[in-house]
Amino acid sequence: MSQLSGFLYPRTATGRSSLIPDPPWFYSGDLLTVEYRTDPANVAALLPAPLELAPEDPGAVAFIWADWQSCSTSREELLDPVRSQYKEAFVVVRCAYEGVTYSRCVYIWVDKDFAIARGLHQGYPKKLGSMWQTRPHPFAHGAPQIGPGGMFGATLAVGDRRLAEAVLTLREESPTNGFVNGHPMAHHRVLPNIGGPGDAFAELISSGASSFQGGQAWSGDAELRLFDSPTEEVASLEIEEMIGGYYRQVGVEWNGGTSLAVLPEAR
Amino acid sequence: MSQLSGFLYPRTATGRSSLIPDPPWFYSGDLLTVEYRTDPANVAALLPAPLELAPEDPGAVAFIWADWQSCSTSREELLDPVRSQYKEAFVVVRCAYEGVTYSRCVYIWVDKDFAIARGLHQGYPKKLGSMWQTRPHPFAHGAPQIGPGGMFGATLAVGDRRLAEAVLTLREESPTNGFVNGHPMAHHRVLPNIGGPGDAFAELISSGASSFQGGQAWSGDAELRLFDSPTEEVASLEIEEMIGGYYRQVGVEWNGGTSLAVLPEAR
Amino acid sequence: MSQLSGFLYPRTATGRSSLIPDPPWFYSGDLLTVEYRTDPANVAALLPAPLELAPEDPGAVAFIWADWQSCSTSREELLDPVRSQYKEAFVVVRCAYEGVTYSRCVYIWVDKDFAIARGLHQGYPKKLGSMWQTRPHPFAHGAPQIGPGGMFGATLAVGDRRLAEAVLTLREESPTNGFVNGHPMAHHRVLPNIGGPGDAFAELISSGASSFQGGQAWSGDAELRLFDSPTEEVASLEIEEMIGGYYRQVGVEWNGGTSLAVLPEAR
Amino acid sequence: MSQLSGFLYPRTATGRSSLIPDPPWFYSGDLLTVEYRTDPANVAALLPAPLELAPEDPGAVAFIWADWQSCSTSREELLDPVRSQYKEAFVVVRCAYEGVTYSRCVYIWVDKDFAIARGLHQGYPKKLGSMWQTRPHPFAHGAPQIGPGGMFGATLAVGDRRLAEAVLTLREESPTNGFVNGHPMAHHRVLPNIGGPGDAFAELISSGASSFQGGQAWSGDAELRLFDSPTEEVASLEIEEMIGGYYRQVGVEWNGGTSLAVLPEAR
Repeated sequence: MSQLSGFLYPRTATGRSSLIPDPPWFYSGDLLTVEYRTDPANVAALLPAPLELAPEDPGAVAFIWADWQSCSTSREELLDPVRSQYKEAFVVVRCAYEGVTYSRCVYIWVDKDFAIARGLHQGYPKKLGSMWQTRPHPFAHGAPQIGPGGMFGATLAVGDRRLAEAVLTLREESPTNGFVNGHPMAHHRVLPNIGGPGDAFAELISSGASSFQGGQAWSGDAELRLFDSPTEEVASLEIEEMIGGYYRQVGVEWNGGTSLAVLPEAR
Repeated sequence: MSQLSGFLYPRTATGRSSLIPDPPWFYSGDLLTVEYRTDPANVAALLPAPLELAPEDPGAVAFIWADWQSCSTSREELLDPVRSQYKEAFVVVRCAYEGVTYSRCVYIWVDKDFAIARGLHQGYPKKLGSMWQTRPHPFAHGAPQIGPGGMFGATLAVGDRRLAEAVLTLREESPTNGFVNGHPMAHHRVLPNIGGPGDAFAELISSGASSFQGGQAWSGDAELRLFDSPTEEVASLEIEEMIGGYYRQVGVEWNGGTSLAVLPEAR
Repeated sequence: MSQLSGFLYPRTATGRSSLIPDPPWFYSGDLLTVEYRTDPANVAALLPAPLELAPEDPGAVAFIWADWQSCSTSREELLDPVRSQYKEAFVVVRCAYEGVTYSRCVYIWVDKDFAIARGLHQGYPKKLGSMWQTRPHPFAHGAPQIGPGGMFGATLAVGDRRLAEAVLTLREESPTNGFVNGHPMAHHRVLPNIGGPGDAFAELISSGASSFQGGQAWSGDAELRLFDSPTEEVASLEIEEMIGGYYRQVGVEWNGGTSLAVLPEAR
Repeated sequence: MSQLSGFLYPRTATGRSSLIPDPPWFYSGDLLTVEYRTDPANVAALLPAPLELAPEDPGAVAFIWADWQSCSTSREELLDPVRSQYKEAFVVVRCAYEGVTYSRCVYIWVDKDFAIARGLHQGYPKKLGSMWQTRPHPFAHGAPQIGPGGMFGATLAVGDRRLAEAVLTLREESPTNGFVNGHPMAHHRVLPNIGGPGDAFAELISSGASSFQGGQAWSGDAELRLFDSPTEEVASLEIEEMIGGYYRQVGVEWNGGTSLAVLPEAR
């Protein structure tokens, strides 16, 4: 029979059909971040052993919208942009593993299958959703600018229900784009047993950007509203105290990560 | 009974449900334009009397992709951007009416209902389609920049069939963004008779931007491929000679137009 | 220049590009209907003069979901079903005009552009929405049957917000499929003035099925929940008293209607 | 920290957020199948060792469209049908493993994320696509019936390109619904290494329906057209000889499978 190629499924002789190509993967996009504090017990409820709460500010949460254009080394996706553009919304907390603090994405929604597939590899728990995020533009007729007073809205809907909406009004240049999503990610990758309970494969991995450039970050006043749904629990990360809102344009390269532990189970 | 409000349907006591609000309407967006020449007979075949071919370069065609963010005077749509962002692809020719040269959109596809509804009012023959257009971004990881060598792709699909795809490679600053879409628009608005053949209402109107700002236009080398479909005839505007490709960021206000003629029929 | 063809825009020499073909139009589909009473003042608020409240049970409302497959005389759409299938949710009240009782669709959402275009012609105030409706199937593994105890859900979302959801549990065969949507429709068709306030065209028309077949109707227990939205007012038709729920499979032909009055304005 | 629940990601204390619930999973739906023969070398090119070509008719291919409604044991998805209904198109070949003949899905496209996730577990190489399939209905106005002369169309598009289209005209009752998809499935499940080349996990599994009911199968005359795409290779399974077309309504329960082999690599 055949030697198959392709980073992920479906694998073929050429590898051309693979839902995603080999890393590295390249991203240009805009991040709208809202950070707040919830009861740390709400964060703990999402951290399986051996992960622990982060030692400092353990209840901090980042709700982030991102509007991306992405490609592989060939850059061919950029000229067929249905294969390149996607939007996402995700929720990040922090945790500790063997004394090191990590960021961890606990919920994430995207609008393309290639983004779901990258998440399988990277351990992001991606579902499909409908995300919208105000775009800046040089002309103000129908757009804000990245500067004082610039107002940006962002929404998330899943299963035809609105789950979250935010409004960010920029106020001033900021030395940071927030701190919750600032560490390497600690993520689980799992495949349940085909024949019964438990996992066939469970692994704790770590990864982060292999290269990063960012524009000037801006901070401002943020509002965030979370709504309940029968299939989602993001509203359980209740907002106790707003930390702030941030906007930043970034360029990112991702090129693999590190296996921290292969586990018997990830539940 | 009631005095109803609302610019378009459904009209209610408050007007809040209207699919579109009163003009003026405001737009910020990026235009990718490919201009070419077809046999003028192909253009004439789309111009009902009393319209005539434009006196100069009558076979010129512009195929334009636009990536828009838009709003009404309240600007509230900008903070709920599912109501603000849309994409479109459209085909423009020129014509003459009573000795004046007009631009005329002969085919157009959009991806939101509010854009369809604006087109009803403005005489753009809008259908739904799936349009994608490479976005520029300050960081080059997954994006071109608006400058020499910047490559932009654009695609159009309708009814799950690809109808058009373009690649534009920017070369130099340009004094224009093309000429085909540069005149006021001459469009028909029609409603067929509810009870039989013919139109209940047919009107020739003219409109254009009530205010406009544009960034530096760029020109470059353009490729354009058109594909056939059982429900579309854009491929009949066959490409005989490429004129050029253009990219420009613009801000636009639209605030009504002028009725040129009420007609017994528009066929 | 040219003699153009095509029922609606864009008109061309062949007529092939028209968003919709000439009537008659043919439909096969399933209707899930929930009828209830609201304060008649809520209905009156949606009826422009010269329409009046229906003389009997003037606060009756029908909220209807429909899952359609449709085609023109050629039936060619049935073999390219992206052009044939669509879903809709709509709200019907009754009214009186010159002593005759009519049904009237006050809100409607569909998921295809050809359905929007038919609505332009027929006076249905169609927007885009996302509608889902449980389907019956001969095998019960993942489906109800049309019979006692059969449970059907239906949902409507617009602009990424859920607007309505219903659950219908069938109980028994019913002599009717409800009464609110049982009269000829009285609808307005409007085009606003291109140059200022008021309408360029406003017409009151009437139409209904030119041919109809229906299976056995079933009635049952219905729940209906309506939710608010910044752009929709359906929740203002508050539920005061449930009348009942109905399910029926139907085949319909539509082939034009009658102009009741051309009006100076429809607000 | 916490004991997490949930069949797949994201796992939480309650398990409610999991993209898919525990099996068993239940399906009711309609299958439109086109079977043909390609050069067996085209099939062999998709079978990694230790899989071999099936001993009989090794070039047989089934191209199948399915229109599903599905649920878990709770059946709650059926009342919120955005979580229940999905469409798919898939391509099945046969292979042999340790002397046993299996069916194997080599390409598959679906339109919901929960269907992608079930595929991760079952080893179906699912991508997102846009599938449409003519539906039968009791009333013929806009629908065929399952019977002699009934005509059904089916289309598949991926990335805004049409990949396949079929037309099936039913002729007579059939003792089978085809033979290519009639064996237990032999599928790979893979996760690439996070830190370099190769797979972190690769497993060959087998599964099939744990319970099945089917209506009368019909056979007929089938046409099938395959189109190329930069990201898909289904057109490489060139049609050498049509075998036939089939239509059948079915109810299915799926409740796990068997691990055949854990492999060092699946390429």
